[in-house]
Amino acid sequence: MTGPERMTDYGRLIVRGEDRPGIVANVSGVLTEFGANIVSLDQSSSDPSGGRFFQRTVFHLDDLPARIGRLNDVLEQRLADRLGLDFRLVEAKRRKRVAMFVSKADHCLLDLLWRQRRGELHMTVPMVVSNHPDLGEEVRQFDIPFFHVPVDKDSKAAAEKEQLNLLKGNVDLLVLARYMQILSGGFLEELGVPVINIHHSFLPAFMGAGPYQRAKERGVKLVGATAHYVTEDLDEGPIIEQDVIRVSHRESVRDLQRRGADVERLVLSRAVSWHCDDRVIRDGNSTVVF
Amino acid sequence: MTGPERMTDYGRLIVRGEDRPGIVANVSGVLTEFGANIVSLDQSSSDPSGGRFFQRTVFHLDDLPARIGRLNDVLEQRLADRLGLDFRLVEAKRRKRVAMFVSKADHCLLDLLWRQRRGELHMTVPMVVSNHPDLGEEVRQFDIPFFHVPVDKDSKAAAEKEQLNLLKGNVDLLVLARYMQILSGGFLEELGVPVINIHHSFLPAFMGAGPYQRAKERGVKLVGATAHYVTEDLDEGPIIEQDVIRVSHRESVRDLQRRGADVERLVLSRAVSWHCDDRVIRDGNSTVVF
Amino acid sequence: MTGPERMTDYGRLIVRGEDRPGIVANVSGVLTEFGANIVSLDQSSSDPSGGRFFQRTVFHLDDLPARIGRLNDVLEQRLADRLGLDFRLVEAKRRKRVAMFVSKADHCLLDLLWRQRRGELHMTVPMVVSNHPDLGEEVRQFDIPFFHVPVDKDSKAAAEKEQLNLLKGNVDLLVLARYMQILSGGFLEELGVPVINIHHSFLPAFMGAGPYQRAKERGVKLVGATAHYVTEDLDEGPIIEQDVIRVSHRESVRDLQRRGADVERLVLSRAVSWHCDDRVIRDGNSTVVF
Amino acid sequence: MTGPERMTDYGRLIVRGEDRPGIVANVSGVLTEFGANIVSLDQSSSDPSGGRFFQRTVFHLDDLPARIGRLNDVLEQRLADRLGLDFRLVEAKRRKRVAMFVSKADHCLLDLLWRQRRGELHMTVPMVVSNHPDLGEEVRQFDIPFFHVPVDKDSKAAAEKEQLNLLKGNVDLLVLARYMQILSGGFLEELGVPVINIHHSFLPAFMGAGPYQRAKERGVKLVGATAHYVTEDLDEGPIIEQDVIRVSHRESVRDLQRRGADVERLVLSRAVSWHCDDRVIRDGNSTVVF
Repeated sequence: MTGPERMTDYGRLIVRGEDRPGIVANVSGVLTEFGANIVSLDQSSSDPSGGRFFQRTVFHLDDLPARIGRLNDVLEQRLADRLGLDFRLVEAKRRKRVAMFVSKADHCLLDLLWRQRRGELHMTVPMVVSNHPDLGEEVRQFDIPFFHVPVDKDSKAAAEKEQLNLLKGNVDLLVLARYMQILSGGFLEELGVPVINIHHSFLPAFMGAGPYQRAKERGVKLVGATAHYVTEDLDEGPIIEQDVIRVSHRESVRDLQRRGADVERLVLSRAVSWHCDDRVIRDGNSTVVF
Repeated sequence: MTGPERMTDYGRLIVRGEDRPGIVANVSGVLTEFGANIVSLDQSSSDPSGGRFFQRTVFHLDDLPARIGRLNDVLEQRLADRLGLDFRLVEAKRRKRVAMFVSKADHCLLDLLWRQRRGELHMTVPMVVSNHPDLGEEVRQFDIPFFHVPVDKDSKAAAEKEQLNLLKGNVDLLVLARYMQILSGGFLEELGVPVINIHHSFLPAFMGAGPYQRAKERGVKLVGATAHYVTEDLDEGPIIEQDVIRVSHRESVRDLQRRGADVERLVLSRAVSWHCDDRVIRDGNSTVVF
Repeated sequence: MTGPERMTDYGRLIVRGEDRPGIVANVSGVLTEFGANIVSLDQSSSDPSGGRFFQRTVFHLDDLPARIGRLNDVLEQRLADRLGLDFRLVEAKRRKRVAMFVSKADHCLLDLLWRQRRGELHMTVPMVVSNHPDLGEEVRQFDIPFFHVPVDKDSKAAAEKEQLNLLKGNVDLLVLARYMQILSGGFLEELGVPVINIHHSFLPAFMGAGPYQRAKERGVKLVGATAHYVTEDLDEGPIIEQDVIRVSHRESVRDLQRRGADVERLVLSRAVSWHCDDRVIRDGNSTVVF
Repeated sequence: MTGPERMTDYGRLIVRGEDRPGIVANVSGVLTEFGANIVSLDQSSSDPSGGRFFQRTVFHLDDLPARIGRLNDVLEQRLADRLGLDFRLVEAKRRKRVAMFVSKADHCLLDLLWRQRRGELHMTVPMVVSNHPDLGEEVRQFDIPFFHVPVDKDSKAAAEKEQLNLLKGNVDLLVLARYMQILSGGFLEELGVPVINIHHSFLPAFMGAGPYQRAKERGVKLVGATAHYVTEDLDEGPIIEQDVIRVSHRESVRDLQRRGADVERLVLSRAVSWHCDDRVIRDGNSTVVF
């Protein structure tokens, strides 16, 4: 969402935990005590009894930057200590720092950078890292640093170390914008920030090599894309967004790939935008998207 | 939404009014005082400063039927009197009574009755009224009363009177499931319950007679439908739901109408379902759909 | 497609085989010699050199019923003998006889019967067969015979024999409208007519038991359906049509199933309609849909 | 469509005219006489009797560049003279020269240039012309000439003359990629090549000023775009392609515009691609898209 919600003195409070009576009242009570005005509030429970609780609240509070520390302390006491809830409090104005990993395909990367430049995405892009040098010039035209970190089977551990050196402390989110290397579990753990990936999807799935060729061979009528958080199980993390585009027997395998590219960049840009606005809450291997 | 939210001891509270600080806290405070557990809460503001406020809260409260009167009194005091807000408090278990007006086309009507029978829609259907006798047998197979009220130019006022006699006090919602007569402003006012209509839609619109023929003549690639609340301005009321379906030059005018029928019944059924679950809040000539 | 294409004196010619120069000229040459007027012609090659050739031609020929035998003979000579092509020549007016197998879920069946009754589908329905008695009354209201053939692990072979006795010679197509039993390879071979199945689909697929539950657990945002020809590999036959519908975390597992039912009946009805109009040509494990 | 169909020795033949028996046989007969192999053929009639006939044929003919002149002569005789048909014969390899007019919004333009660079669109871009200087640097990074031709009320006639000087003889298609000036009927006539425009679309239409604001006020749930050929009646020409994207009350007017921009660039790129591959045939104020 755009507009005032990304401006000074607006805050976002994300709450997650075991559902129990009174959470909404507690949260809104604290905000009201501070004189905050709730601008929007979305709440959901996975199951009314004994389920999980999720809430995203956007509020306006005069002089938020000076008071957010104190608000955080009170929430710590009232939500975390007393009710055992996880919470995250952020200034809406603060842009997330989003690094991107790419290989050779440019469609997802350029779409994100172009949306970023025209103000659609509430983020900064401190760097783009690639295992190939090809997209360097393109990236630098956006005044964004580009780092080439080659990866091969033998150098993978060293490459991940180099990538971590670049990223650690500098980013709040890593986006795999068609990055064709698998990240190790160790890398993900060490990195410590969320990672979003985009990959093609079909109904039904065509696992393994050459999915477009095999999809063509079975006459699929839809080509799709899925954006998800990366977990150690490749392509199995919580889904943030999906969409499809219609195809027919007229499309060649290469055409299917192009249609796939169109839907990939749309889906990835939505997922990144929603993440940057704290609209996506992870729930085990699922997500709640407000 | 299905499931527990439609069961005993669940309630829905819809709040609407001028936005101001503290509304969410007030609402959730009252519910917490009563010992209610908030199951889901959606809130939205048309504009963070000086805008309109909308909230839908689903809650569980032990022994709700016995206590809803007292809860209503307190909300009257705290929300209506003090904060100047409109509110509606309903027992989720209570099914809305939904009458339908039809003419000769059966696709929207049958789809609703069939969904009703299989338990998708949280409503009862006290009657179907038509200006033609054609669908009587079909309707009665669902054990629903069918009333034939002929309408022609001269008898319109009398027919509306007869329709009002049938409806008044017996229905909470009137659905125009392809009813090809215009209802007078007086009828709408006298009836006093919301009316939902479905009509075909194109991009761009083809106003006036023969829209499918004219859409065909301009080569439209999408056929759509819009479900909206009926106001005195025909086909101009607040939109509840819309959707489209793809067509091509291969489809004849008659094919376009059939595709249109498919999307009409899908869109109307969603709109009716959402209305029955109090998920649609009117806001002037717009809607908020939670 | 509706309209004249289903009327007297209209024919359809489906041609399939190895691509080679001159096929279109040969086909249209024969039709022209007979004085036929080509109403529509769709042609496609899987690969311009050394690929497979597909063509669907709709034509008008005065006095077709009397002349179709002779036309068939000439095509046999010119297309089959000389060019080694498969062809099928049908009178467009002739409705395909379509039997349906169902279990307990009624949504796909009723949608087909309802569309059939209103004239959307160019077919007759000689019978509905079910392994449960539940839908008998419903089916018979459409004046269609309903046969209950129970199936359990021990009786499966006997049941298939009974089913074959009912079907053999009486049907041109079998539709599995949510029939929850697996048909044996022997049954398919013995039956000798195409079989269309509908099943839910996700991106990615959730194989095995409880797909909706598992889709929910991973937070899918789309629920889909796939209509395909049945081969011995369950759920792996050539795809005819697919579509999806959007869902969110708000939908329960049961809601997902209902949304799935909506898209299943739309997709199945399109597949059956296209098959009945000879618009679907099988190509190995794929299809060409004209 | 990509692949061989855009290569040397492939040709496209577009035929249009009054329907009558034997056209397909005549066309394929001529091609066969020349030894051409028909790769794909799509044919359609607006009405089987007395309607309009449309056909697109892609064929392979050895040594096409040397023989296309002779083929054209024979078609002139056999299709135009004898049967009174319009036809167009083109070498598939030849890229159409596509100029673009823009104002300040860059989304449609950049999407086309980016697709062009990655080889999706079978065209060249000899120039981009704008009434504002803003996008010059961007365009020139693609090695494409950019011409700034200011337009105001008084200078409009002079500006159109200057535009015509730039375009005449140099382009096969003009694309209005969010060009916010109306072109005069005289300009269109003088230019003499097709012009494609993209504009936002809603169901129903919101005519006049501020469509997004007014769409928001009525609570629209879909935002769309329409690509069409430009005729003297502004925004009323034959439709080539349309699509929509879902929105809700959560989206601000500015969000609606952004969603609209996403669908605009998808729809425009499809329309341009199809036009460049000669897949769109105009039929009065409608189109046939093969």
